[in-house]
Amino acid sequence: MEHRDRRHVLLDVAGDFAVITMNRPEKRNALSLSHMEELCDAFVEVASSDSRGVILAAAGPVFCAGHDFSEMAGQDYAYMHRLLETCTRLMQTITATPQPVVARVHGLATAAGAQLVATCDLAVASANAGFAAPGGKGGWFCHTPMVAIGHSIGRKRAAELAFTGDVIDAVTARDWGLINRVVEPDDLEPAAFELLERATRGSRYSKALGKRTLYQQLDLPVHDAYAIAVAAMAGASQTHDAQEGMASFLEKRTPKWSDR
Amino acid sequence: MEHRDRRHVLLDVAGDFAVITMNRPEKRNALSLSHMEELCDAFVEVASSDSRGVILAAAGPVFCAGHDFSEMAGQDYAYMHRLLETCTRLMQTITATPQPVVARVHGLATAAGAQLVATCDLAVASANAGFAAPGGKGGWFCHTPMVAIGHSIGRKRAAELAFTGDVIDAVTARDWGLINRVVEPDDLEPAAFELLERATRGSRYSKALGKRTLYQQLDLPVHDAYAIAVAAMAGASQTHDAQEGMASFLEKRTPKWSDR
Amino acid sequence: MEHRDRRHVLLDVAGDFAVITMNRPEKRNALSLSHMEELCDAFVEVASSDSRGVILAAAGPVFCAGHDFSEMAGQDYAYMHRLLETCTRLMQTITATPQPVVARVHGLATAAGAQLVATCDLAVASANAGFAAPGGKGGWFCHTPMVAIGHSIGRKRAAELAFTGDVIDAVTARDWGLINRVVEPDDLEPAAFELLERATRGSRYSKALGKRTLYQQLDLPVHDAYAIAVAAMAGASQTHDAQEGMASFLEKRTPKWSDR
Repeated sequence: MEHRDRRHVLLDVAGDFAVITMNRPEKRNALSLSHMEELCDAFVEVASSDSRGVILAAAGPVFCAGHDFSEMAGQDYAYMHRLLETCTRLMQTITATPQPVVARVHGLATAAGAQLVATCDLAVASANAGFAAPGGKGGWFCHTPMVAIGHSIGRKRAAELAFTGDVIDAVTARDWGLINRVVEPDDLEPAAFELLERATRGSRYSKALGKRTLYQQLDLPVHDAYAIAVAAMAGASQTHDAQEGMASFLEKRTPKWSDR
Repeated sequence: MEHRDRRHVLLDVAGDFAVITMNRPEKRNALSLSHMEELCDAFVEVASSDSRGVILAAAGPVFCAGHDFSEMAGQDYAYMHRLLETCTRLMQTITATPQPVVARVHGLATAAGAQLVATCDLAVASANAGFAAPGGKGGWFCHTPMVAIGHSIGRKRAAELAFTGDVIDAVTARDWGLINRVVEPDDLEPAAFELLERATRGSRYSKALGKRTLYQQLDLPVHDAYAIAVAAMAGASQTHDAQEGMASFLEKRTPKWSDR
Repeated sequence: MEHRDRRHVLLDVAGDFAVITMNRPEKRNALSLSHMEELCDAFVEVASSDSRGVILAAAGPVFCAGHDFSEMAGQDYAYMHRLLETCTRLMQTITATPQPVVARVHGLATAAGAQLVATCDLAVASANAGFAAPGGKGGWFCHTPMVAIGHSIGRKRAAELAFTGDVIDAVTARDWGLINRVVEPDDLEPAAFELLERATRGSRYSKALGKRTLYQQLDLPVHDAYAIAVAAMAGASQTHDAQEGMASFLEKRTPKWSDR
């Protein structure tokens, strides 16, 4: 594994699971341009690694406070557009990462921080975590965070988060479908690994094909979604691991995945 | 403020918040053509007023019983189409109103009445309110009400409401995401104002831009939604209020919104 | 009524409600090609029958275990594509069936079995039923089951089912919106009939028009959905049953549906 020089992001790919840690605690892990570029880069590195799954975590008391106003104030449209495109690219990179990605949320996740949580495939939070789109009660609405958040929860709840800017607690976030699990703070790390362990069983190659198809079809009308899924699933049936899965099931033996 | 001559709708724009009250209690606030035109007109008036938010309320024991059969029976296709287009225009006018709109539901909201609740940005109901799409158990299915209702709740729950025509209570409506809050009848008015107060903090101009983007992107695939949201948010960054929000945050002072 | 020679599927159209029973208990009702073709055929027969509604049930301890690996292992792309298109046609046939369809789930429903449940208009399950998309933990991801499941529940929950392959119980499935009701095993049959009874009140013709419009509009952006629903509802207003519904309401008498 190549060691890159990242200032804001820690990447640990030693074990089965990669852990990407946002490490600007003094800035509440605010998503500066260089922080987002390093996060993208870390996900790209994980994508081609042997890791079977990824945890997105954060250092310090706050998970992620969203964008970094200190570098944005006074910037022009071109700069802002580039910054928001970088942010969108980060989200799309997470979605394009072939391995399952679990957000491990131990504190506040606001604005683009909540967007990160909504974008990860799965999310586990400690009971004292909170989620908000605070732009709605300020001067700059959370337009882009509400894409990921709004596609994860119902319409009225999206409007409530977007317009009030209020923080919802972890239990509410789970009940609304924004995250998967709430645990006590001390249980957060094992709970995130446990969910990732469950989410990474089976053929890694099959899972990567599946993740791609899932996000391609999920927002399309059912008829269009089936056109994509049928072609993908028929194609996937011809892989070694699909055939091995069927054969091992019929032969009542443990499958051997070869990741192709 | 200009006083228009409305027969069926009361409009109060005296305070910070406009209150639009459906006032045909003897007809259970059924949405006759002229009632819907007056409602549209009231929302248009609010849009250009100084109101920071809007409450949609109703007089009499029923919130709104849907369309007015007494003027529809025997009418031809052209009339019905015009009536349903007026109804759709009413819904789109609520969505296009720049201020947040809270439905304050104190009794039954059925058919196009439930559609109104689903269309408002937010909704607070008293514990004795109820919601239904009764066309499904009659002779004329609630095709158009199910657009707004069906886009707010899950598929199986939409099918249940649509096919059974049964009334669900306020707690069920909240659990399904059709409304935001359930309170005791005596608490309804303050609770609706309290939610609207929370939903109208910050820059009014920023909120209006945000509301428009939210509904433009919410039903689109994530990729298309981001294209819209990135352009809108980059543009919004150049407004006075976005810059003021960032500056006041960095300078740790109270922002001063100028609504531009 | 014509009696067709079906090997795997029982069809009872004697009463008001048709009951289609998957009857390959020794194969856990796995969806072989011929089983799916017979199911399609049974739904087509019901569509033109006098039945007011349909129950989809299953014999044996398992509701449906998904596809039948024993006939799929080693097959080529063309075969797999044809099989998955047949499966998709089965789902679309259920959606196109003019009568409401209730899944009555007494045991495990996995992969394409869970897809069947997600596709039926409504679903009632016994407390010991379970739902899963197990391909995610094997070698062949549940691409097509996740179309129906993913369009019924939230994004994070869809990802959890898809990636972990874990079974969720009936109460979780109801809380996530995948099914409508959970009852004790002994109450399952009456509860399914009771829900179907409620879902089939009123004009059968109106309901069929409504079901078609509902699924046409549900996944479209609100604006496009209204264009479809307004035209459908204005057209439906000219039917005998719509006029009878309005007239009987205004005349405070019991309506007489003529199914046109």
